[in-house]
Amino acid sequence: MKNRINERAAQIEAIIKKYLPKEEGYEKKIYEAMNYTMLAGGKRIRPMLMQETYRFFGGGLEIIEPFMAAIEMIHTYSLIHDDLPAMDNDDYRRGKKTAHIVFGEDIAILAGDALLNYAFEVASGAFEAYPERHEIGRAMMVLAKKPGVKGMIGGQVVDVLLTGRKISDDELLYIYKCKTGALIEASMMIGAILAGADDEAVGKVERIALDVGLAFQIQDDILDITSDTETLGKPVGSDSKNNKYTYATMHGLDESRKEVKRLTEEALSYLDELSGENQFLNDLLIYMINREN
Amino acid sequence: MKNRINERAAQIEAIIKKYLPKEEGYEKKIYEAMNYTMLAGGKRIRPMLMQETYRFFGGGLEIIEPFMAAIEMIHTYSLIHDDLPAMDNDDYRRGKKTAHIVFGEDIAILAGDALLNYAFEVASGAFEAYPERHEIGRAMMVLAKKPGVKGMIGGQVVDVLLTGRKISDDELLYIYKCKTGALIEASMMIGAILAGADDEAVGKVERIALDVGLAFQIQDDILDITSDTETLGKPVGSDSKNNKYTYATMHGLDESRKEVKRLTEEALSYLDELSGENQFLNDLLIYMINREN
Repeated sequence: MKNRINERAAQIEAIIKKYLPKEEGYEKKIYEAMNYTMLAGGKRIRPMLMQETYRFFGGGLEIIEPFMAAIEMIHTYSLIHDDLPAMDNDDYRRGKKTAHIVFGEDIAILAGDALLNYAFEVASGAFEAYPERHEIGRAMMVLAKKPGVKGMIGGQVVDVLLTGRKISDDELLYIYKCKTGALIEASMMIGAILAGADDEAVGKVERIALDVGLAFQIQDDILDITSDTETLGKPVGSDSKNNKYTYATMHGLDESRKEVKRLTEEALSYLDELSGENQFLNDLLIYMINREN
Repeated sequence: MKNRINERAAQIEAIIKKYLPKEEGYEKKIYEAMNYTMLAGGKRIRPMLMQETYRFFGGGLEIIEPFMAAIEMIHTYSLIHDDLPAMDNDDYRRGKKTAHIVFGEDIAILAGDALLNYAFEVASGAFEAYPERHEIGRAMMVLAKKPGVKGMIGGQVVDVLLTGRKISDDELLYIYKCKTGALIEASMMIGAILAGADDEAVGKVERIALDVGLAFQIQDDILDITSDTETLGKPVGSDSKNNKYTYATMHGLDESRKEVKRLTEEALSYLDELSGENQFLNDLLIYMINREN
C-alpha cells in the first residue's frame, strides 16, 4: 500500500505544482513565501482523499484538480498562521524553518492571507473551464464553509481560547471535529459532489470523513506519546510538555487505540453502504488512520 | 447628494447586518471580533458602488446582497491584518481601538482570516438561492481574483516591501492600483456582472473603476496634507510624518488636484458611453472622489 500511496502522492504533487503562482513581478516575494510553504513536504492527505472519493464515485475529468490544489492551499495557509509568534510561535515545521522565520512576520501573515484567497481564485477557475457544470457551485459552497468559522477556524479559535485550561470531552471533540475534521470532510465531500454524487451520498461521505478526521487526530495524539522523533519527523512528547490536553492524555493509550479502531470500523462500514469502486479508498483510509508518522 | 448617500448607506448597513454571524457557541469570541470590526464605522463605499453599478445595468433582485456583504468583509479583514503589530501596528482606526487591542493579537489574526473566508461562504450562498443564475460563477471569479495576489494583497505586499525606500512612479501606481483600486474594480464589476452586463460592458466598468480607485487614493493623499484632524476623523500629516511616499508628496498638491480632475473626467466620460440609468452613479462618483473626509 505504501508504494501505491507514494505513487499517487507524486502525481498529486505534480497537479498541485501546476496551480502554484510564478515567482515574478513587484510582488515576487509573496509568491516565494507561498510556494516555499506549499512545497515544504506535506503528505497531501486532503487532495488524495478528494481525488480518491472523486474516483470512487466515477469521476474522470480534470475538473477536480483545481479543487485539490485549493484544499491544500487552505491547509497550508492555516499552518503558516498557526506557526506565527502570536499563535503557536513555532520556528520549525516538518524540520524546515517556518514562513515567518524565513520571510518575516509581515510577509508570513500576507502569505497566509494570499493562500486562503488564492484557493478560491484557483477553484473558481473551474467556472470558466466548465461553465455548464452546476456542481461547481455546490463544491464552492463546501470549500467556503468547512474551513470557516463553523469549521476549521472555529476549532482553531476554541483551541486558542482553551489552551492551558482543563477542557471537557465536549470541548475536545469540538476542537477535533473542527480543526482536523472539517478539511477532511470538505475534501471527501467535494470529491463526491464533483463526481455527481447525490445529496444522500454526500451526506454519508461527510459522516465517513468525520470519523476519519477524529481517528486521524487521535492517532496523532497516540504517536506523540509512543513514537520516536526519527519516525515521527518532529519532537515527540510535545503535547504533554506543552500541557496540551489531547484525547490520549485525557483517556490513556488503551482507550485511545480502542476509539481509533471503533471510528475506523464505523467509517469503513459506512463506506460499504455506498456503491462505488471502494478498494483503494478503503485501503487508504486504513493506512492513513493507522499510520506510524 | 450627501443626504441621498446617507440614506442609501443606512440601507446598506441593514443589508450587511443581515449577513453578520450570530455571537454564540464555543467560538463566540471570533464572531464578536468579526462584528466589532465590521460595525466600526466604515463608509460602505464598496458595497454602495456595487449596488449602484448593479442598478445602473437594471439589476433588481436581492442576488446582489450577499456579494455586497462579502466585499465589505474582505475590505474589513484587510484592515484588521493591516493594523497588526507586525504590519502597521495601529492601535486606533476611525477613532476606535483596533481588533488586536480589544481581542488580542491571536484572535485578531483569526478574525481577519475568518472574515476573508466568510466572504466566500456568504457569497457562495447565492449558488443555493439562485441555482439557475450562471453569472454567479463569473462574479465569484472576480470576488476571488481582485482581492488576491494580483490585486489587493499584491499591492499590500509591495507597500510593505518598499516602506521607507524612495519609490518610482511605476511602483506607486502599482500599489495604488492594487491596494485601493482592486476592491473598487471588484465592486463595480460584480455589480455589472450580476445585472447581466456583457463582457464588453464589464471591461468598461473595470476601466471606470480603475480611474475611480486612483482618484480616490490621490484625494486621500491630498486630504492628509490639507484637511484638519476634526474634518478627517484621523490625524492629518501622518504620511509625511511616516516618511510615506504618496502621489501628493511626490508630485505636489497642484499636480495631484489636476490628476484627480483628469481621472474623474475620464471615468465619467467612460460612464457616458455605457447605456444605463447613470444619474445617481455619476453623482456618487463625483461626490466620492471629491470628498472632504
